[in-house]
This record gives sequence, structure tokens and C-alpha cells, in this order.
Amino acid sequence: MELQGTSWIGARRGTGGGGEWKAVNPATGEELEPAYIGETEKNVDAACRLAEEASREYRGKSGAEKAAFLRTIADEIDGLEDEIVTRMTAESALPEGRCRMEKGRTCFQLRMFAEVVEEGSWVDARIDHADPDRAPVPKPDVRSMWRPLGPVVVFCASNFPLAYSVAGGDTASALAAGCPVIVNAHWAHPGTAEIVGTAVRRAVEQCGMPEGVFSVLFGKGVDVGQALVKHPAVRAVGFTGSRRGGRALMNLAAARPEPIPVWAEMSAVNPVFILPGAMKERGEKIAQGFVGSLTLGVGQFCTNPGLVFTGTEGRGAFAELVAAGVAETPAGTMLHPGIAKSFHEGIGAMSGKAETLARVEGNPGANEAGAVVFGARAGDFLADASMAAEMFGPASLLVEAEGEAKLLEIAEGLEGQLTASVHATEEDRALFARLIAVLERKAGRLVYNGFPTGVEVCHGMIHGGPYPATSDGRSTSVGPRAITRFARMVCWQDFPDGLLPAELQEKNPLGLSRIVDGKRS
Amino acid sequence: MELQGTSWIGARRGTGGGGEWKAVNPATGEELEPAYIGETEKNVDAACRLAEEASREYRGKSGAEKAAFLRTIADEIDGLEDEIVTRMTAESALPEGRCRMEKGRTCFQLRMFAEVVEEGSWVDARIDHADPDRAPVPKPDVRSMWRPLGPVVVFCASNFPLAYSVAGGDTASALAAGCPVIVNAHWAHPGTAEIVGTAVRRAVEQCGMPEGVFSVLFGKGVDVGQALVKHPAVRAVGFTGSRRGGRALMNLAAARPEPIPVWAEMSAVNPVFILPGAMKERGEKIAQGFVGSLTLGVGQFCTNPGLVFTGTEGRGAFAELVAAGVAETPAGTMLHPGIAKSFHEGIGAMSGKAETLARVEGNPGANEAGAVVFGARAGDFLADASMAAEMFGPASLLVEAEGEAKLLEIAEGLEGQLTASVHATEEDRALFARLIAVLERKAGRLVYNGFPTGVEVCHGMIHGGPYPATSDGRSTSVGPRAITRFARMVCWQDFPDGLLPAELQEKNPLGLSRIVDGKRS
Repeated sequence: MELQGTSWIGARRGTGGGGEWKAVNPATGEELEPAYIGETEKNVDAACRLAEEASREYRGKSGAEKAAFLRTIADEIDGLEDEIVTRMTAESALPEGRCRMEKGRTCFQLRMFAEVVEEGSWVDARIDHADPDRAPVPKPDVRSMWRPLGPVVVFCASNFPLAYSVAGGDTASALAAGCPVIVNAHWAHPGTAEIVGTAVRRAVEQCGMPEGVFSVLFGKGVDVGQALVKHPAVRAVGFTGSRRGGRALMNLAAARPEPIPVWAEMSAVNPVFILPGAMKERGEKIAQGFVGSLTLGVGQFCTNPGLVFTGTEGRGAFAELVAAGVAETPAGTMLHPGIAKSFHEGIGAMSGKAETLARVEGNPGANEAGAVVFGARAGDFLADASMAAEMFGPASLLVEAEGEAKLLEIAEGLEGQLTASVHATEEDRALFARLIAVLERKAGRLVYNGFPTGVEVCHGMIHGGPYPATSDGRSTSVGPRAITRFARMVCWQDFPDGLLPAELQEKNPLGLSRIVDGKRS
Repeated sequence: MELQGTSWIGARRGTGGGGEWKAVNPATGEELEPAYIGETEKNVDAACRLAEEASREYRGKSGAEKAAFLRTIADEIDGLEDEIVTRMTAESALPEGRCRMEKGRTCFQLRMFAEVVEEGSWVDARIDHADPDRAPVPKPDVRSMWRPLGPVVVFCASNFPLAYSVAGGDTASALAAGCPVIVNAHWAHPGTAEIVGTAVRRAVEQCGMPEGVFSVLFGKGVDVGQALVKHPAVRAVGFTGSRRGGRALMNLAAARPEPIPVWAEMSAVNPVFILPGAMKERGEKIAQGFVGSLTLGVGQFCTNPGLVFTGTEGRGAFAELVAAGVAETPAGTMLHPGIAKSFHEGIGAMSGKAETLARVEGNPGANEAGAVVFGARAGDFLADASMAAEMFGPASLLVEAEGEAKLLEIAEGLEGQLTASVHATEEDRALFARLIAVLERKAGRLVYNGFPTGVEVCHGMIHGGPYPATSDGRSTSVGPRAITRFARMVCWQDFPDGLLPAELQEKNPLGLSRIVDGKRS
């Protein structure tokens, strides 16, 4: 495919006007052709109006029609795999194997949501039958289910150029819910965005979907994103990125004349607790697992384990094992210069506060990061909140807690997290119970004897957590449950059966699992 | 019960310090004893800390324990019925029959949530089994469900001194979810709040619940409410009231260091559309029904029908029937002087813009309101957005739309609503389909051949709708679905069965309906 360097505004290409730039290969510094042209507010408005118009038709599509559309998107992406991987590798420095795996995950998500909407029970249909004879007033017939919210803006994540970008989890769940999507491409991987965006456009055409159901807009700075979030046609926002960026969007959305939900997945340090019994029994294995989790993908995951808490016993040996493991892991190229700069600033700041236990040098000028592990004592950690801040990349702080009380005090003081992991054995049970009761209030996902990286895409997954891990910890951005972020409940009262949506009709023509008169059927 | 005029801060009475006032009988102007003493920020903090502490224990209570607690609250309220009704009538001018019905609804809601948590499937448990042999990485065991958010602040509604106040829908759903509740009593009916608050306190004692699970705070102005919403221990807010008040709380909550959800049910004009066939077939019956809905409870319901849209044919006769019906309905006393003043200001402003079709005089000095019906043509209505503003009370505007296009244009321009009602016959089907497609995007509940007042408490009910009807139209404040407003999803990965909550254990000891490996079971 010959890249054009322009947005897709429905079926036509954008005209730009908002500033040009070229993507850069972070490993070589080489500029990649073509130049990308940012949009102006006028084209943002055009895309939003098209989405609003498309919403009227698209919200009426059946589960089967939406499923066919999602599967066609996946097929189109599959067909462009080599092209995507080539460009993605150049734009992100992610290795080819990772790019192919991420392509697989992206298509898996699209097909999973296809299954979810084809099966259809996600709408949570509930029916209460009328009782015309009830005194003092007759009981009406009341039926309700999830319906699409309307146009959704999706911001691409820098660290998942496919799986949380143009046709990633947010887009897949919004389209599945019945919402048009307007994507704000990430400036660091515009070529990947254009290829995937073109794949989606092809699927729109093939499936005869309304033009405005999908657009992807380029922008050099924050103007395009801000204009999108402020546009009156937009009904919700999906975002994966920094806390600063996410909070800015939350504030913008809350200040609208009509506030809208922002589903922002922002930051986490994903604490790992190693309890005394586990340390004694298998400290070496845990150290190995930790180093693997820490360094996976040059540490560029929101589930990277940035804090590890241990007791005193065995801690010295554990730190040595970690240091040895880290030393064997070569530095890697980060996603873009901004991330590399933040990482080096972060570890620079931490090295003034904590002991450096292990460090692999990476060349900041070449956007490299090597793994770094710091050490601190609980008292120092508790006295300085900045020691719990995220250092996005392969960096972690080992905190030594002298006794159970300190460990629990630390847990109690943690900010909201995506995950919290605990390594324990039978002999740790009493402490485990007290600790997990605290962590349940702090995190979206609790991991037993494991590490937080690797977010399984499945029905039970929760990838979310209390602020500041996400904007609203009530939901998840991974797995089928993500779909209801882009829906709202609508109720039909006393409607004749023929005028009800199929999901709510008496004979249950779609064969859904429903709650009828309070009972699951 | 001898009223004390002081808050309940857990098990002790408040010390006040924030200004005193007495409730006033709106029908007589008589001041009611005792004086109520507002709290200071110090006692707000004390109540929030108690709630935070109680949250740790209360979130661990089983569904059966929470059900017993909710039922005990209902029993205690039942036992105080006469006392409640006497005070409530004096504070609100609501007739005795209405007070008794509202008491019934309040206890029904408490017992309904008791059933919901006793049955237990509301937690939406989902289980994905591990596959240790999966390549390239093993699949973990992943399980998740709704868990309580933490302390919830509930603001009492002026128009439901029982059903949306101290032990009303928000409190019942928050306690059911496993969240402690801190109530901010409404200044207009503090005595009712104290009696019901005492009933809840008795239930806390009887059931051995942690002290801080329930507090009720008095305050003369907005200070107590604002301090509650800003308190770091508070995790969510429930509010029923004005748009101005609701939006102020939304803004306050969004500006917190850690933003929290505000579930505000604010304002609506609940449009009613009468299509030509229905007007021809049963205009008289519809006029009767409309007058009944308009004047019910002196129009003081958030579902009051404030806008009626008709075609041209039959509109004159319909307006005459409405005028005749209104003339037969005596004026009534409103809930408090503020509401009466707003009502008279609202109808005063409208009478400068629209024709007065019918009006029953009410003495503003005695807080009375008589029903008022205005008339306008579609063109004038479309040209002046202020004509769609809520006039809280028994006032409505009949808008005559010349043709289908105008009717659809009007529908398209409506703000978010709690409800939208359409009267139609077989011959209206084509117009009905186009209209309802628009209204589905505007309202939380669609009513066919009926009126919006009367919100059934049942599994399928949605009492919510797009902003400004509510702060977040994704949920409902009536019915079992209200419980998830006060919960968030938590996920357990690779936990041994014995360390999982009962809801997620392999053998399903609670017998819940769950989704296991993607299938409902």
C-alpha cells in the first residue's frame, strides 16, 4: 500500500492544514516517509458530524451484522500483516515477533467481540411483565437493555501500536457496542495507523456500513485530540497513556456543557509482595520470574512491576539474584525519544533517593533503556511519596519492610493500581489474608504467585483499577466487559411486542440469556 | 421518639456548630420543633473516617448478612410509620396517603435489595479456567466480580423525603453493594431524616454492623455537602435534585485529586408526543391521562410531563379538554417555599412567551401551586431554547407541530430526558418508527401510550437518561441495577480455590448464575 500521509475522514482523505511531521525510527534516528499532515478543527468537525450521522444507522445494526463487520476488519488486518509489521517495527523498534504477536492479539480481540455481539446476551436484557390487575395501580410492562452511547473517540497508545490503537481494544469494543469510532492516531506510529485505518475503511466498504462509522485523524500536537473530546457529537472517550494526558482529557470532558465519560488507562506501578514463606521456599524462582516480567518488551507495559516489597530475611540473596538476572538482559530501544527521555529522568531522580542494586547501561542518545533495580528501606519509602511514582520502562524499586506491620502500612498507603501480586505459601496465610484485604481496595487485578505482565483477553479479565490507574476503576479496557463502557441502559414501557427490539421481544427470537420477572432464563 | 435536632455520627450524636434552623410547615408557615444543628467540617471528617473504617469490615459481609441488615432497617421503619408520617406531613405538606405509600415504597426497595444480595448473582461472577499447556504462554485462571467501592455520600431529595432520602433508593443500593453510607439530610425535612436515621441506627446495632456503616449529617447550607463530596474517604455520591446543584457536585467531584463518580438525577421535562391517529382515536382519554399525570403530587415529580407535542388536527379540542380537566384540579401546597418561588417564577417567565391555555391560581404566599398549561407553536418553540426548560411543579407546555418534519425536528433538538412518551395507533406506525429512533437517543425510558409518572421498582426499570437528566445516563437510580453504581470490578488471577471469595469458588457454593469459560451457567 502506498502511504498517503493523510487522515481518513469517513471515505475521503483528509486535507490537513494542521502541521506536518515524519515518523522517526527510534533505533536509527532515520526519518520515515511520507510526511504526515495534521488536521484542523474543520476536519475534526467533519469527522464528528459524519460519525453522528452514521450513528443513527449503525446503532440499528444487528449483532450478526456487527460481528461480520468486526471479522472483516480482522481479515483485512490479517491480509496486511507483513506490511503492518514492517512499518510497525520501523516506527516503534518493537521486534518482529512482538509485532506479529500483537497483530494476533488485535485480530483475536476483534473476533472475540464479534462472538460477543453475535451471541448477544451482553445487552443484559431484563423483562418485567405487566400486571393490569394490581392495586392500587396496574403494573406496567417494563423491559430494558444496553444500547450504544453514540460516537466514541479513541486515542492510540504509544506502547501498543496495534492492540490499543486504531483497531485495538477500545475501537473493537465501541464498534461492538454499536458506536462509530473516530481515532486520534499516535504521532509516533502514523504509518501503522494509516495501514490499519485503511484496513478498517476497506471493511466498512465491504460490509456496506455507513461512511462515518470510522475515521482516523492525524495531528502533530494536542489540538486534534482536544477538539475531538470537546465536540458535541462525541459521547465517550477511550484513552491509554500517561497520567498527565489522561487527566487533561478527564478535565476537558468534565468541563463540557454536556460531560461525557472518559475511559483512561493511565499509570500504575503494579506492586509485587513477596511474603516470608515464599521467599524462603522459592526466592530464586521468584527472582527469575520478576526479572522476566520487569524486562519484557523493554519494560514498556502498563503492568510492569515497578515496586517489589519483601521482608528482611532472604532479601539480600534475592537482590543478588535479581541483579545477576538483570545483568544478563541487554538494553533495548524504547518506543520513542520522549519515552526514553522520561525513563532516564525517572531513574536519575530515583538514584538520588535509593540505592542502585543493578543497572544495565543504555544509551539515552540512541533511545535505549537498560534494566535498573533500586533498593530502599520501608521507612524511607513511606517518608517520600515520590518513590512510588511510575518510571515507565524496565525499572523497579525493591523495598525491604521490617515486619508485617510495615508491609501492611505500605499496602495501605498505595495509590490505585491496575494490579497487585502476592507470592505466598501455606505458612504465609495469616499475613496473606490481611494483606489481600487491603490490596483488594487498591487494585483491579490480584495475582497469586505470579507477575502482572501478560493481560489475558478473556471474559473474566479486569484491566482497570482505582484512580490514578484509570479514570474510573469501575470497568475494564480488556475483555468482553469493556463493551458496556460505550453503552447506556434504555427502557421500554408497555410497548407492543412488534415494536420492541428483538432482544426484548417475548419469544426471545435471538435466544439470549435474560432476566425475566427477576429470574435468569 | 423525642427528636434531638442533631446528627448521627456513627453511634454518637453530632455536636453541631454549623448554624441552627427549624423546619417549617409549608402549609401553615409554622416552625417545627426542635431546632436542627448543622455540623462543622470536623464532624464531617469524623463521619467519613468512621465510614472508611467500617468499610473494611462491612465489605466482607455476606449477601445473607447484608440482606438481614436491609430487612431490619425496613422493619424498624415500619415500626415508626405513624411517627414518620406525622412529621413528614408537617414538613412537606404531602398528604398522609402519599406519605404512607412512600413509606411502603421505601421499605419495598430495602427488601428488594435484600433479595438481590441474598440471591447474589448481581455480582456478575465470571470464571475462565487455566490452560497450563497453552503455547506460547500458559493461560492463567482468571475470575472476577463486582465489589463495593467504599463509603458513599447520599443527598436527600426534597420531593421524596423517604424513598430518595435517608433510607431511600441510593442508600439501599449502596448498603446492598457493601458500601457504608453518609447521608446529608435535606434542610426542609430534618425531622423525618432524624426519625428514619434513628431507625437505621437501631438496625446497625441489632445486626452488629460496624459503627461507621451509617451516619446522617445535618447542615443548613451547602458546606456539609461540599465537605462530604471533597473528603478523600468518600468513593461515590448519590444525589437527586436540581440541575444546578447536581452539576455543582459533579464539578466538585471531577476536580478532586482523585475524582469520584457522582450519580445525580437532576432534571427533565419528559416530553409526550401525541401522534395524529392516537389524537383522532382517543384524544379525550389522553387529555384525561395527561391532566392526571401533570397534577399528581402537585406536579413535584422528576417524571412530570412538562412538554406535550401534538399535530394540528384535533389540537384545539384537546387543549379544551385539558383546560377543563385542569380547572377541576384544586391548587396544592408545594414542598417548601423555595420550590414554590421557583415554580411561580418559571410560569411567570413562560407566560411572557407562550399563550396561557389553562390556569388554576395558587397563592404563592401560602406556597401553593395550581396547574398551568401553556400553548405554543413549533416555530416559536424551536426558536427559543428556554421554552424547553423545566418548570418544576404542575406546569406544562403544549406545542403544536405542523406536520411530521416539525415533530421530528423538535425531537432531534431535545436535551437528555428521563423519559419520552408516545401515543400512537396502527396508522401512526411509520411516523412512530422514525420518532422513536430519535427518542431512543434522548431518553432513558420510552413509554408507549402512557404517561411518565409512576416509576415502577422492578428489575427492568431504568430511571436515568442522558445529561442533563442525570450526570451519567449509563445507569439507573431505581431498581436492582442501581447497585452497580456503587461497585467496581475486581479480578483474581491464579488464586487457590480456598482463597477466593465464595462467589468465585469452583463449586459455586452460593449457587449463583455465572459465566464460566464464556458460557452462562
